[in-house]
Amino acid sequence: MKDKAVSPPEEVVLDDARLQRIGLDEAIYCQGKSPAQTDSILAASIRNRTPRLLTRLDGKSFEALDADHRSRLDYDPVSCTAILAFDRKPDPGSDLGSDAAASKERAQVTVASAGTSDIPAAKEAVRTLAYYKEAVQEIHDIGVAGLWRLLDRLDDIRSTPVVIAAAGMEASLPSVLGGQVPGLVIALPTSNGYGISAGGRVALEAALSSCAPGLAVVNIDNGYGAACLALRALRIARAPSHCLY
Amino acid sequence: MKDKAVSPPEEVVLDDARLQRIGLDEAIYCQGKSPAQTDSILAASIRNRTPRLLTRLDGKSFEALDADHRSRLDYDPVSCTAILAFDRKPDPGSDLGSDAAASKERAQVTVASAGTSDIPAAKEAVRTLAYYKEAVQEIHDIGVAGLWRLLDRLDDIRSTPVVIAAAGMEASLPSVLGGQVPGLVIALPTSNGYGISAGGRVALEAALSSCAPGLAVVNIDNGYGAACLALRALRIARAPSHCLY
Amino acid sequence: MKDKAVSPPEEVVLDDARLQRIGLDEAIYCQGKSPAQTDSILAASIRNRTPRLLTRLDGKSFEALDADHRSRLDYDPVSCTAILAFDRKPDPGSDLGSDAAASKERAQVTVASAGTSDIPAAKEAVRTLAYYKEAVQEIHDIGVAGLWRLLDRLDDIRSTPVVIAAAGMEASLPSVLGGQVPGLVIALPTSNGYGISAGGRVALEAALSSCAPGLAVVNIDNGYGAACLALRALRIARAPSHCLY
Amino acid sequence: MKDKAVSPPEEVVLDDARLQRIGLDEAIYCQGKSPAQTDSILAASIRNRTPRLLTRLDGKSFEALDADHRSRLDYDPVSCTAILAFDRKPDPGSDLGSDAAASKERAQVTVASAGTSDIPAAKEAVRTLAYYKEAVQEIHDIGVAGLWRLLDRLDDIRSTPVVIAAAGMEASLPSVLGGQVPGLVIALPTSNGYGISAGGRVALEAALSSCAPGLAVVNIDNGYGAACLALRALRIARAPSHCLY
Amino acid sequence: MKDKAVSPPEEVVLDDARLQRIGLDEAIYCQGKSPAQTDSILAASIRNRTPRLLTRLDGKSFEALDADHRSRLDYDPVSCTAILAFDRKPDPGSDLGSDAAASKERAQVTVASAGTSDIPAAKEAVRTLAYYKEAVQEIHDIGVAGLWRLLDRLDDIRSTPVVIAAAGMEASLPSVLGGQVPGLVIALPTSNGYGISAGGRVALEAALSSCAPGLAVVNIDNGYGAACLALRALRIARAPSHCLY
Amino acid sequence: MKDKAVSPPEEVVLDDARLQRIGLDEAIYCQGKSPAQTDSILAASIRNRTPRLLTRLDGKSFEALDADHRSRLDYDPVSCTAILAFDRKPDPGSDLGSDAAASKERAQVTVASAGTSDIPAAKEAVRTLAYYKEAVQEIHDIGVAGLWRLLDRLDDIRSTPVVIAAAGMEASLPSVLGGQVPGLVIALPTSNGYGISAGGRVALEAALSSCAPGLAVVNIDNGYGAACLALRALRIARAPSHCLY
Amino acid sequence: MKDKAVSPPEEVVLDDARLQRIGLDEAIYCQGKSPAQTDSILAASIRNRTPRLLTRLDGKSFEALDADHRSRLDYDPVSCTAILAFDRKPDPGSDLGSDAAASKERAQVTVASAGTSDIPAAKEAVRTLAYYKEAVQEIHDIGVAGLWRLLDRLDDIRSTPVVIAAAGMEASLPSVLGGQVPGLVIALPTSNGYGISAGGRVALEAALSSCAPGLAVVNIDNGYGAACLALRALRIARAPSHCLY
Amino acid sequence: MKDKAVSPPEEVVLDDARLQRIGLDEAIYCQGKSPAQTDSILAASIRNRTPRLLTRLDGKSFEALDADHRSRLDYDPVSCTAILAFDRKPDPGSDLGSDAAASKERAQVTVASAGTSDIPAAKEAVRTLAYYKEAVQEIHDIGVAGLWRLLDRLDDIRSTPVVIAAAGMEASLPSVLGGQVPGLVIALPTSNGYGISAGGRVALEAALSSCAPGLAVVNIDNGYGAACLALRALRIARAPSHCLY
Repeated sequence: MKDKAVSPPEEVVLDDARLQRIGLDEAIYCQGKSPAQTDSILAASIRNRTPRLLTRLDGKSFEALDADHRSRLDYDPVSCTAILAFDRKPDPGSDLGSDAAASKERAQVTVASAGTSDIPAAKEAVRTLAYYKEAVQEIHDIGVAGLWRLLDRLDDIRSTPVVIAAAGMEASLPSVLGGQVPGLVIALPTSNGYGISAGGRVALEAALSSCAPGLAVVNIDNGYGAACLALRALRIARAPSHCLY
Repeated sequence: MKDKAVSPPEEVVLDDARLQRIGLDEAIYCQGKSPAQTDSILAASIRNRTPRLLTRLDGKSFEALDADHRSRLDYDPVSCTAILAFDRKPDPGSDLGSDAAASKERAQVTVASAGTSDIPAAKEAVRTLAYYKEAVQEIHDIGVAGLWRLLDRLDDIRSTPVVIAAAGMEASLPSVLGGQVPGLVIALPTSNGYGISAGGRVALEAALSSCAPGLAVVNIDNGYGAACLALRALRIARAPSHCLY
Repeated sequence: MKDKAVSPPEEVVLDDARLQRIGLDEAIYCQGKSPAQTDSILAASIRNRTPRLLTRLDGKSFEALDADHRSRLDYDPVSCTAILAFDRKPDPGSDLGSDAAASKERAQVTVASAGTSDIPAAKEAVRTLAYYKEAVQEIHDIGVAGLWRLLDRLDDIRSTPVVIAAAGMEASLPSVLGGQVPGLVIALPTSNGYGISAGGRVALEAALSSCAPGLAVVNIDNGYGAACLALRALRIARAPSHCLY
Repeated sequence: MKDKAVSPPEEVVLDDARLQRIGLDEAIYCQGKSPAQTDSILAASIRNRTPRLLTRLDGKSFEALDADHRSRLDYDPVSCTAILAFDRKPDPGSDLGSDAAASKERAQVTVASAGTSDIPAAKEAVRTLAYYKEAVQEIHDIGVAGLWRLLDRLDDIRSTPVVIAAAGMEASLPSVLGGQVPGLVIALPTSNGYGISAGGRVALEAALSSCAPGLAVVNIDNGYGAACLALRALRIARAPSHCLY
Repeated sequence: MKDKAVSPPEEVVLDDARLQRIGLDEAIYCQGKSPAQTDSILAASIRNRTPRLLTRLDGKSFEALDADHRSRLDYDPVSCTAILAFDRKPDPGSDLGSDAAASKERAQVTVASAGTSDIPAAKEAVRTLAYYKEAVQEIHDIGVAGLWRLLDRLDDIRSTPVVIAAAGMEASLPSVLGGQVPGLVIALPTSNGYGISAGGRVALEAALSSCAPGLAVVNIDNGYGAACLALRALRIARAPSHCLY
Repeated sequence: MKDKAVSPPEEVVLDDARLQRIGLDEAIYCQGKSPAQTDSILAASIRNRTPRLLTRLDGKSFEALDADHRSRLDYDPVSCTAILAFDRKPDPGSDLGSDAAASKERAQVTVASAGTSDIPAAKEAVRTLAYYKEAVQEIHDIGVAGLWRLLDRLDDIRSTPVVIAAAGMEASLPSVLGGQVPGLVIALPTSNGYGISAGGRVALEAALSSCAPGLAVVNIDNGYGAACLALRALRIARAPSHCLY
Repeated sequence: MKDKAVSPPEEVVLDDARLQRIGLDEAIYCQGKSPAQTDSILAASIRNRTPRLLTRLDGKSFEALDADHRSRLDYDPVSCTAILAFDRKPDPGSDLGSDAAASKERAQVTVASAGTSDIPAAKEAVRTLAYYKEAVQEIHDIGVAGLWRLLDRLDDIRSTPVVIAAAGMEASLPSVLGGQVPGLVIALPTSNGYGISAGGRVALEAALSSCAPGLAVVNIDNGYGAACLALRALRIARAPSHCLY
Repeated sequence: MKDKAVSPPEEVVLDDARLQRIGLDEAIYCQGKSPAQTDSILAASIRNRTPRLLTRLDGKSFEALDADHRSRLDYDPVSCTAILAFDRKPDPGSDLGSDAAASKERAQVTVASAGTSDIPAAKEAVRTLAYYKEAVQEIHDIGVAGLWRLLDRLDDIRSTPVVIAAAGMEASLPSVLGGQVPGLVIALPTSNGYGISAGGRVALEAALSSCAPGLAVVNIDNGYGAACLALRALRIARAPSHCLY
């Protein structure tokens, strides 16, 4: 029986045709996966030189991975994401996220956050966009309690066609932005809050109830989904097969 | 048995010592009361020349009251309130609410609303303040989707020490005001909304979760309570028995 | 007092700078507005020749409007929307919605529905897009219980860069589409359902929980919001001020 | 007092007539039971040579059991189940679950899962069926985001009269299967999810709301119950006392 | 515009391949459909001699249908179902439901109810089974508050391989039956209740939480679904393509 | 078919052995029953001279009953109860409820209410007690906002061994009484409230959460259940078969 | 600052007049109290020779108490209660609970439980009754899935005037007992369950919705409250000041 | 990569104009912040001699701060708050909280609590008021189960114009006070409770539903917000710019 407890886990079957089908490959959602399951996916990916985005990989789970695998990953502890890339060697001094943020003049997406506690979810979006080589402008700590901080940055925010607004508690930020910005505004509610707003349900429902027309809403803390939504929207203008007039 | 069905209802026992105790008398909450119950309260009040504020008295219920009673009431169909006053005859051309609002230079309370559908709850607050002869400044349609409308009126709003902000849906208005106004900001969530925000729970919970420090929150559509809260706060400065330094 | 009950309602203050600011003007949400309030908005709009989209205007409320106003409106009883347009006379034989749908070769948006009961919400989206002169391809009754109906239309659906998927009950349609379509997929949960799914909360939460990456979700029955979201996304490709590379 | 803290626990009274009454004996639900309670049940069962299925026995609780008891149990750490069998010696190299799965040609039940995180619940069903010597066909990772994986296996799935479909998040898998498979489809919602779908309530309610006719639904993560349901259904055809025409 | 309001509704697209695919055709769920929509489906069905089951058709909606259509329907006001059959003329004196119930010796399904208010949901199941020519044994008013009524009928209940147990409030009936009956027990929670149990959520969740192993649960008031589930289970024993050993 | 729509309803099977078993007979819960069903129960009861308590029989439903049946019933429109008694003729001038209340010196139960809107639920308890010939002391309008009203009546309340406290909104009344009264205190939460407290869930949960030890709680508006609970408790002292020391 | 962290906690002010007022003294609810706070209460109680019941004192918190205090307490790890008594020395070999249970012929209260996991809550009731020297009959493992276990003990259960029925999951036990037992039946819902029933809300709401008339319900896991309720009821028969006829 | 894991966190951008704008500076909400983030804020504050209030800083997080920073903080483990003050050296023997409480004759705010477990939330309010040099009168353990404790202190409570009432479970305390006290009453619901009241939702909703007119409610455990609300109210009387008559 003892042997069995350490026997290899179920082999995970990935949807690798997804990239061809919808232009987004399957991210590896690590929460609930054992280190052995994650390592087995990484081993196969390294063998096939398939790039991978890993999400919800907390520091402890990262440390439990195979040392060789870890050395090949660009890991970010704030967003709990890791990127396995093959076109260039990950560089400890400059992660993909900040590298992308640096090239701000090319950014098509703004990732904004209301407060410090919303940054992990915001960074999951930043890192997903970086994985797909999409440049990002990051603007943090512009929650509506200090409205002028937000208004001061409005021109910057309006300069990108897509805005992701991460906010917890009562999540007024996406509502206010939705009324000021003509582009696509994606509300990313976060689990940041306490008492009645603990866990993010109030933030989510407030975003869905917004009086600003045409907000896109994603699940609580779903920075990955917000980024994929941005990528789908940006593709509209770039894909040659769609004839916009 | 038939007689019984129309027999006089239970005599309502009012808490008439409340005025002496806390400076607020008992309002007559009419929803769920039969016309006979309301008329019986009015008859006694007229007999004793006791002023009364009636709330949640919709048009149909008002029409079902005794004609003589109706002629003595200052009724407002928007807020569903009626006032029985003895110091002056109600005048059809100028109700207590607008009378009070006219004397704007004396106003200590601003009642603001985010949109048209929030006006009934806001007006319940206005009328309650009028009943207690408290002047009110009304500012409507300043929801955050059109942020500049709100910012244009910010100096007016800051000019009163108390602000009641009525808003449904995601109720961002009290949050934004709470970060801009030094006085007492009372969030009055309304039942205005649909889908996930129908009934006002999202507005209420968003107000409670606000990132602005020190918001006072009341129950959904509770304009009466918001006004009483304002009255309690204004009393602090006026009551001689409290030695503020 | 009687006069007062029929006195003109509060004048509604519309956010008419919104069009300049974000490219979407303020729709008139009619639920909860009295006929007098709606007529007063219409009168002003006709005076200023400002086009208007009216939503949540049910048949009974439409019939209660001023006869002259009604004659100028293009009203659709299924979606409960009315359009006040000035560039052409509404024609009883062909409403704006079907006119737009007819020019299917130009459509940039597909509006799909899972079942008959989801059509009112879907049509609110169709009509909103028609108001903004955006051509639409409509595909109905493709719920996943009969999966082949959906698969048969997949090429049609993929032909537009934006897809709005209206579904109630367990709302599997947006999830399945999200995994098959590379464009922007907007989940429009509807209130269609009974028992545990009555009112649409299950459909909404299922859409938010979708395993397909990058779904945009809007409030229950919010066809208007889904359409505005589509318009924001389409604008990315068309607006000259944004330099997509 | 110290002695008391380690005194033997309450003797558990099992419903051992249940097997005769309904053909299913009482499984030992170990969550919340102390090791002493579980060991006391095992000791009695070994004494009486009564087979037992133990569920929700996590690795740590298993390790806390009496060593001799552990050596007699066939334990599976993925499903957290243990089987005490008397007709054959548990063999570390081939657990009851995979043994059953191997004899796929005899399988009357398919246990399918949408994703890796749904496997523990699915395996609880597999192991329960193995305990009752029911052969199982396992098919994993066929969630609807990659629809073709599911369609590729549809003939296999249709080959068994009963299908158990384990899925978390928005749980579209049972809905899609319910529209494609003529046999009994049992939806097994799992707690796999985050944000609004954390804990499995969305998956459960989506399964209950399915547009596919005649889905059987069980509690969240209740693989044991799904398997018992399958056993009840299979019994219909096998029991000689029921005269099906 | 007036003409438009009465213009023919959207043509409903039915999934008529469903019968071939899963052995159950698409029932017409009438709640939310206009009489014109229902009549249009009926007209087509009569033209093609396709039998139809209509559910959630309340008395008022039935009366609003075309008179000729009504004369062809076997309508039951308790369950709000109508059956369009072509193999025999509906006979006012004996509806399909009671006809089936009469032939009790052949019944493979028991439909039981806890109280009078649970009968409409129970009857929806009875009528669905009748539509598929499945004989039913009905046993009503056996709620657990009067336990002996239930125990007195236990042998009758055990005589059929499938039992549907309709119950509202706290829904103890399916739990008690699940512990006494070896066959398939389907819990059909109903919306019958008040206070905390109004609408049926408590009944549903109690059924899902049952301590009896292997209960199948369906949505609140979903008699149609419970019957389809029973049909799927009975098919296991009858279908020649499945080789049960 | 037309005949069928008016055919006699299902015969209701009552649990008439309940009186012998637990000392409480089955009340007829009329909500959801058709007049024909209620009349059929009444006809049988009159035939057998079986007394009956009918609850949730609103005025309109009462008026729809057979005229002869109505003449035999003691009907109370406030509590929506009717009593069919055989030991004395109902007297229009004094209903059973007030008759019982008059004989206050014999009362073993106090029925108290917090406000006017809680009276219907309170009266359902009063009438149920009257049906079982239990004398009642009624004390109304003692909600805690006017605490002295409650304190003034505390000695009266303490004089009976059982107290039923009906309250809606935040339901502080049972908590305060529970800390002051040594007897059995039964919290009867009511649906009286608005906004967050509409429907009674807050009142119910507040009563269950009370800091006063040993409160008994019943379902929202369940005056009948509160009275039965009181009867069960009073029986303890009166039943000779129980040897209290 | 360091000193401050270990400074004595706030002195707790107990309601020691409660015993005189309502016959129940204040139990010490230890969850959330620091060991220092509990020790400080114990020290004062020992000084004044005031007996005390401590609830929700888990093993770890008990071990953290002062050693001398521990030696004076009769601690029960299953119910997490401790009793400080002064009339006799606690005896490690026979705790107050089992001592009381032994004298079964005198028992006025039955404490029943549905399953093993419900025993901790049941034992909290047993221990509270023991603290007040009320004899108890304990009957465990009689959940309705094995109905005959319950029926076999029905005469025993009926022999006491008060029955406390502890059950989690769907909590059918109190419903079934409420229909069989004439005495006072107290439903004690427990947090025992998983998936939808985790935490006890389903058990609580099922108990409140019971079809059996006159059940008393307490909060989830509130064995202490159930016992106090029983004591209040038993007092009715014993207190000389109440004149029952 | 290893270096990166310990790289400095995102720099937090504080809203330091808030003090000028609304008279309240931004408190540092430490829950969810890393020690490095908190230390970085403290370092900057010390550099600029900016006073700071830190909330939700539990003992373990406090101990993880830089030793020099800790020596400059006045930390209170009960309320989990720390104060960085520059006008006087923190004195281990007398913290700001108790210092303020000592000067009771000057107190404008009473902070009352229902029970021991409500003290942490109450103390967060006390400490926030101390940070703003507002004197406080503290009164604890006056829950309504022991009503006389509350009534005994009523004159003391009425002596301050503002009252903060902290209570968990069913939170009757603010309701009772609201009916007795003419000043501003702020309900501070706490998370103290178990079963249905665990987490504080019942306390919050009960406070919002209070029958006492004009209660101000804040989020669960939000002592900081309650104090800010009190400060806003007290400012009304003190600010020279507002002309109260």
